[in-house]
Amino acid sequence: MRVTHRFASRSYSTLNLAKASSKSVFPNERYFKPEIVTGEVPGPKSKELLQNLNNVQDLRTTHFVSDYSKSSGNYIADADGNIYLDTFMQISSIPLGYNHPALIEAAKSEEWVTTAINRPAVGINPSSDYYKLLMDSYMRVAPKGLTQVQPLSTGSEAIENAFKAAFMWYQQNQRGGPTQPFSKEDLDSCMANSAPGSPQLSILSFSTCFHGRSMAALSVTRSKALHKVDIPAFDWPVAPFPHLKYPLDQYEKENRATEDACLAEVEKIIKSCTKPGRYGPVAAVVVEPVQAEGGDRHASPYFFQSLRRITKEQGVIFIVDEVQTGGGGTGKFWAHEHWDLQDSPDIVCFSKKLQAAGFFYKKELTPNMGYRIFNTWLGDPLRALQLRTIIDVIEKDDLLKNVNETGRVLFDGLRQLEKTYGHKGLIKNVRGKGCFGAFDCKDPATRDALIMELRRRGVEAGGSGESTIRLRPALVFTSKHAEIFLNILNECMSKL
Amino acid sequence: MRVTHRFASRSYSTLNLAKASSKSVFPNERYFKPEIVTGEVPGPKSKELLQNLNNVQDLRTTHFVSDYSKSSGNYIADADGNIYLDTFMQISSIPLGYNHPALIEAAKSEEWVTTAINRPAVGINPSSDYYKLLMDSYMRVAPKGLTQVQPLSTGSEAIENAFKAAFMWYQQNQRGGPTQPFSKEDLDSCMANSAPGSPQLSILSFSTCFHGRSMAALSVTRSKALHKVDIPAFDWPVAPFPHLKYPLDQYEKENRATEDACLAEVEKIIKSCTKPGRYGPVAAVVVEPVQAEGGDRHASPYFFQSLRRITKEQGVIFIVDEVQTGGGGTGKFWAHEHWDLQDSPDIVCFSKKLQAAGFFYKKELTPNMGYRIFNTWLGDPLRALQLRTIIDVIEKDDLLKNVNETGRVLFDGLRQLEKTYGHKGLIKNVRGKGCFGAFDCKDPATRDALIMELRRRGVEAGGSGESTIRLRPALVFTSKHAEIFLNILNECMSKL
Repeated sequence: MRVTHRFASRSYSTLNLAKASSKSVFPNERYFKPEIVTGEVPGPKSKELLQNLNNVQDLRTTHFVSDYSKSSGNYIADADGNIYLDTFMQISSIPLGYNHPALIEAAKSEEWVTTAINRPAVGINPSSDYYKLLMDSYMRVAPKGLTQVQPLSTGSEAIENAFKAAFMWYQQNQRGGPTQPFSKEDLDSCMANSAPGSPQLSILSFSTCFHGRSMAALSVTRSKALHKVDIPAFDWPVAPFPHLKYPLDQYEKENRATEDACLAEVEKIIKSCTKPGRYGPVAAVVVEPVQAEGGDRHASPYFFQSLRRITKEQGVIFIVDEVQTGGGGTGKFWAHEHWDLQDSPDIVCFSKKLQAAGFFYKKELTPNMGYRIFNTWLGDPLRALQLRTIIDVIEKDDLLKNVNETGRVLFDGLRQLEKTYGHKGLIKNVRGKGCFGAFDCKDPATRDALIMELRRRGVEAGGSGESTIRLRPALVFTSKHAEIFLNILNECMSKL
Repeated sequence: MRVTHRFASRSYSTLNLAKASSKSVFPNERYFKPEIVTGEVPGPKSKELLQNLNNVQDLRTTHFVSDYSKSSGNYIADADGNIYLDTFMQISSIPLGYNHPALIEAAKSEEWVTTAINRPAVGINPSSDYYKLLMDSYMRVAPKGLTQVQPLSTGSEAIENAFKAAFMWYQQNQRGGPTQPFSKEDLDSCMANSAPGSPQLSILSFSTCFHGRSMAALSVTRSKALHKVDIPAFDWPVAPFPHLKYPLDQYEKENRATEDACLAEVEKIIKSCTKPGRYGPVAAVVVEPVQAEGGDRHASPYFFQSLRRITKEQGVIFIVDEVQTGGGGTGKFWAHEHWDLQDSPDIVCFSKKLQAAGFFYKKELTPNMGYRIFNTWLGDPLRALQLRTIIDVIEKDDLLKNVNETGRVLFDGLRQLEKTYGHKGLIKNVRGKGCFGAFDCKDPATRDALIMELRRRGVEAGGSGESTIRLRPALVFTSKHAEIFLNILNECMSKL
């Protein structure tokens, strides 16, 4: 089966695309289009490689085996020579597409080579370039109000250490401030994992949320049973996340009532957990700006403003998990910028699109002593170098503007498809910001069939939640790419 | 203060060093020697950079600010132009010294560049090169009996996921095998972090052990209260680690009795925790081949053989944490190879010197379904590329042989110093394998003073435990470097 596509019918577009397509920075991307040359996907080479791989590493989850040397921009090539327009981008973790020339150039520099092969224990022997690197990478995108950064290696590691910082802060306040010493009882009892040194404290998270898979991160994760079953968990409380009606602007009143009910529950849980009991006092609330893995669930700025207010009133740390939303996909660098907060979150966690992971935090959350938030590597300066180039390109090429422009084309098109195919249960609840979008199918089987149909026609897409398709293109996804995607989606939907 | 040193008095050496020094692969290392050009360490430039750094990242733990572009082989340069012989090597995490030519060459290759800038979600879209890479890196050093690898990003992440694999295996056995489905009760209850879906199971670890700092890893860590205080912990049991008398060969009988007492306690804990109670059933025992952070505590092959036997008899997973010991420092690639086990450990965790992290495991520990041990990146293929070159160099340059040869010089010298300065409380309990060595001072203050004195004379060294100095040189540390170190250590001890 060789599938070819009419390019850019323009039926979905409101923009002049000539400019966008002529200024592609990728030398090869212009020659690419979604093109499947094997009878089925994954093709025979992918399958053979996968069989070998699964003999030594558990890779049953693989979509197909990719050829990164042949991928370019928004197109990913596979081992069989198939070319896919990639709207999923490695689970939302590639900001500039494949083989961006600026990253190729940066990776060839002496600075990269030296940094790559001399990975330091940053907390012991940071490099003399490191201060400048911090300022040119992380600190350039530090969320307003957060003056400190703790680089780490993964999103889960960021979450785990953010929790630790919150617990330390909470206990420090109980002791009466940073200059108060630990008691002997604290120091002795923690060695046996017992209170008061290992206190019964909790983190409040929301139904259908996802915050990672290491064991504390997994304890707050509530998206899917398969992630959690068989694993011991901290018995921490959960509040309902508002499940809103879309489009949000048509259901403002109902949605406000839903959000208010959830907020009341948050406040009730925090107030009822002030002493040891089933849960123990809540030290922090953690929330995603958009529940991504849980099925792209949105809430309004009002909801998040209220969470900020409640946590502040109750003396609880407010952690915003921007692991999936951070890095520009929503049309702002941080999704929480859409909320227009008076007072910033206390902690913002990041990873994925930034390539470097960690968390930003307010100065007062700095532990009272060194070595308390610590590990061998404390992140990877190589990935900070990469982040520096990523930010350079986002600024130079005005990629947030591109995301917003493309987003308009994308969502106009999706809403048009919703009108056409909504009755078939193929697309409803179109929602999103920037190009960080999603829609639901009527059931999981339909969603899975649609993803497979897209892949057969040369589009790589990802699912989430029960029956959602989530769009996570790179920041270099233009209106032209959106049109190609919409055309193929249209074909799939007319066929299913 | 400009300190210069007599090189190679030969008083400690039993080897002809001419060969070792002439074949250095580092173009610059021959011109290097420990040389302090500032009045104090850290020098003024280090201090200024640190002040800036601490404004944005908590780096109070820093020894000095390094200049990696000027470092070579076993010598690390700092921001002030001081040169240190590095016996600590970024907390034991640099295998081939600084700027090894083979790594420079590898890092300049197109393969490195492509891999660096197209970091995949390995579980979704692995690269077509990935199978070959797995076989040429991880699988080339897979411990005997362990046919599977799970690449991850850090040592803590390896530990957390090894625990998850053990818990899944334990619960699967409770259900009656991999084909038995989860019950509805399991799937529902785990979403509320409650049993039976989130079961009360535990991991047994040892007193004074260290396994990492994310919250499950921290729950088994027992080395220092400062790591643990204020952080909620899983209430898991602890067994006494044998605190042996050194030298081991002089106290075999007493040490055996100590080990037997500890082993009896391990067996007693496992047997007493077979149903939910304070701890819950023990799913796994985790142990370091040498307790490193806890103060370089050794145990005999008999102890570890017995642990393997007991865990097998009791149906408990045996996890060996080789995060610090793995990669050749003990004179074998894996420290557990020194034990001559009949049946291999079930899981071996690694990170640090391998640059790539993860765990090896027995096939029967593969989860019954995909997505259960999973995250976005599942390690970093770039670091696997680095590991491939590291293994190439270890093999080509016969570095394990070098480690063992250097170790003999190192330990002969340390024992000689113990005879000379033991009475001053400066050095006792000299112990180690390969170049993975340590000695104790009489108290923490003396240890800290000795580390500072070494640094002032151009040697970077690291502490551990209460009052221990641990030696963690790179695998390219030759007898010549050992002699330089011993000479300076001698000077320090004669002065203190």
